Amino acid sequence: METRIDPYVDTYATRTMGMKASAIRALFAVANRPEVVSLAGGMPNIADLPLDVIGTMIGDLIKARGPQIMNYGSAQGDDRIREQICEVMREEQIEAHGDDVIITCGSQQGLDLVTRTFIDPGDVILAEAPSYVGALGTFAAYQARVVHVAMDEEGIIPEAVREATAAVQASGGRVKFLYTIPNFNNPAGTLLSVARRQELLAVAKELGILLVEDNPYGLLGIDVPPQPALRSFDAEQVVYLGSFSKTFAPGFRTGWVLAPPAVLKKLVLAQESATLCPPTFSQFAISEYLSTWDWRAQIASFRDMYRIRRDAMLRGLDDHMPAGATWTHPKGGFFVWMTLPEGFDADQLMGRATSHRVAFVPGTAFYADGLGSRNMRLSYCFPTPEAIYEGTRRLGEAIKEEAELRATFGLTIPRTQPEEIAP
Amino acid sequence: METRIDPYVDTYATRTMGMKASAIRALFAVANRPEVVSLAGGMPNIADLPLDVIGTMIGDLIKARGPQIMNYGSAQGDDRIREQICEVMREEQIEAHGDDVIITCGSQQGLDLVTRTFIDPGDVILAEAPSYVGALGTFAAYQARVVHVAMDEEGIIPEAVREATAAVQASGGRVKFLYTIPNFNNPAGTLLSVARRQELLAVAKELGILLVEDNPYGLLGIDVPPQPALRSFDAEQVVYLGSFSKTFAPGFRTGWVLAPPAVLKKLVLAQESATLCPPTFSQFAISEYLSTWDWRAQIASFRDMYRIRRDAMLRGLDDHMPAGATWTHPKGGFFVWMTLPEGFDADQLMGRATSHRVAFVPGTAFYADGLGSRNMRLSYCFPTPEAIYEGTRRLGEAIKEEAELRATFGLTIPRTQPEEIAP
Repeated sequence: METRIDPYVDTYATRTMGMKASAIRALFAVANRPEVVSLAGGMPNIADLPLDVIGTMIGDLIKARGPQIMNYGSAQGDDRIREQICEVMREEQIEAHGDDVIITCGSQQGLDLVTRTFIDPGDVILAEAPSYVGALGTFAAYQARVVHVAMDEEGIIPEAVREATAAVQASGGRVKFLYTIPNFNNPAGTLLSVARRQELLAVAKELGILLVEDNPYGLLGIDVPPQPALRSFDAEQVVYLGSFSKTFAPGFRTGWVLAPPAVLKKLVLAQESATLCPPTFSQFAISEYLSTWDWRAQIASFRDMYRIRRDAMLRGLDDHMPAGATWTHPKGGFFVWMTLPEGFDADQLMGRATSHRVAFVPGTAFYADGLGSRNMRLSYCFPTPEAIYEGTRRLGEAIKEEAELRATFGLTIPRTQPEEIAP
Repeated sequence: METRIDPYVDTYATRTMGMKASAIRALFAVANRPEVVSLAGGMPNIADLPLDVIGTMIGDLIKARGPQIMNYGSAQGDDRIREQICEVMREEQIEAHGDDVIITCGSQQGLDLVTRTFIDPGDVILAEAPSYVGALGTFAAYQARVVHVAMDEEGIIPEAVREATAAVQASGGRVKFLYTIPNFNNPAGTLLSVARRQELLAVAKELGILLVEDNPYGLLGIDVPPQPALRSFDAEQVVYLGSFSKTFAPGFRTGWVLAPPAVLKKLVLAQESATLCPPTFSQFAISEYLSTWDWRAQIASFRDMYRIRRDAMLRGLDDHMPAGATWTHPKGGFFVWMTLPEGFDADQLMGRATSHRVAFVPGTAFYADGLGSRNMRLSYCFPTPEAIYEGTRRLGEAIKEEAELRATFGLTIPRTQPEEIAP
């Protein structure tokens, strides 16, 4: 094989050093093979959407208003959809005005713009332990220093925020914001209790730390109604990220940020230089969907679908996991976070799981600091309930095989491990 | 009125200081008033698209393949459209493989990702004088230092690239890339001659400077066939940016970057953290359009439409501009670049033009260094030919009035001025 030296290696920006190919990408090539049950992906199951209705609706929209909806729009996004988004957010008790919303190319781009607006290289972001892998990727691309904050079964621990901030300040660092997914955390599956929400806000206010509330799953509670958003308690201390990816469809790449006016202005400027304007056509398509279809009923039907899948996974884990393994019992969202018995290493288990035709995401992907080696994220959002159950059976077999090998050859791999999140 | 102090003012990243609200945004509020003829915008006229066909096509696509085309895709973009893009680029004699293409959220996002990949704060970007205002915005957001390189009627001057590079190096700076729009430059309307293309590449190679070739208008030549792209001569020295915004429709926000493999890898990583994936639905919609509609004939019909509009503008300028004003005669694209007689200031003329119900973009928007005060960009892409002609008449009146005032009160405003680009 020809070995080529990258002729541009000396010319890349420093930030590219933090931009690494995630282990997850290689993983997905495996996970997408048809014989593999993928408990790895975070893809919503959107086959339930009324495709005929949506097809006709969007086709008609193009015929009637093509020259407008297929042209450039404003950097902040279309007025009407921003008003409709306020209506969606009202489900979580947020009172907001469309002027304070900016449309983004998926809420991932919301994360990018927020990080771009606040982070100089070396600035500190507090992030839950574990945290969404895509957020960690964005933070790394802006050369942030991520300091993790402990969670337990009720979500992020406010007192731990105080401690982490003090430690950062003692080391001369500067906390720019705290990043959290309060509802059905990706990957942990936890739900931040309402009492905790108020405590967290009080601590943030006291310390002068902005909260970045990332909320893709908030309307997908299985056992609980929509919770009051952090933003519903405080309009000044919170930058809120929302998305249609899980409540409608991700392929339109339409998310949003709700921010205090001064921050919003910066985000609009950032959006201008990043994309000129977020996808116009997508905005009009979703706006039409929201105004002509019973989107609340559609979300309710998504919830029912995910309930069946979550139950299949929890039943499968009960039936197939070895003694000593623990996992979260999510009340909504897409993910279960498993902690393997001591001595196991989820990264090392991946190969064996693949040969048993099951895929998961190893826990280390969700830490900026190498922790999480005994953890894995198991998602129940996409496969059929039967496949999910079968996937847990295969995973159980892989773990059993690994345990037998360990018993025979003494292959223990001690690694630092964060606190378990109890079920 | 309540005066509020921005409570976050101390927490923004340093880069936000370079992210300023462009004068253009305020301008567009005026330009969009129905009584105003806007020669300011860069919006393509897409009313000619076969809306019924496209509406049915996209509606059917959703019905048949909704769950796939409305879900997440890869960060690099869908395989099929990347192959089709290679076919589009073949019109400009580019031989490329889909593997070397990444889809972006409009080619503006291509600019963002390329800049993100190469620019550390303080790095130098060489850019034509004048340069696309949106590129200057992106460069500022990454804290690049922009050094302008002179153009003449044949486009950027290769010898001037050599001189600018030497000057940058002498001052201890580092040139990371050169940014150019070789075809029907925005805003100058110039076309880089084929001889110049080869000279420019030779100079770039000799100096080790990457060329960023931004080419939204290449297939919209009015008097000339598609020119061989810089990229067609050299696959290693050029990063090529393309777009469907002007050959199909901007609202899908679908552009692309064709880059050497090592650079492409970085761009894919950058795309992952910026958006997870570019708009999936848009890609499938455009892919379907390209494979079922005669897109070449559609572009030819766009060319005819823009020819009539350009001719209306040139006729109007001939009829209405005062002695001493000069302007470029674009062979394609959207823009005419005008240089006012000595003593005029286009920024100052804007108010008067508005009261005469005509809008343009003042030349200073297209320079990073405050030059261009005697210039204006006049676009002929959107209004009807009649409106364009009328717009030049109104502009002529505004200029005449200004000249009379100057003659009466001696209001001359001498400013530094770059070389004119001769017609």
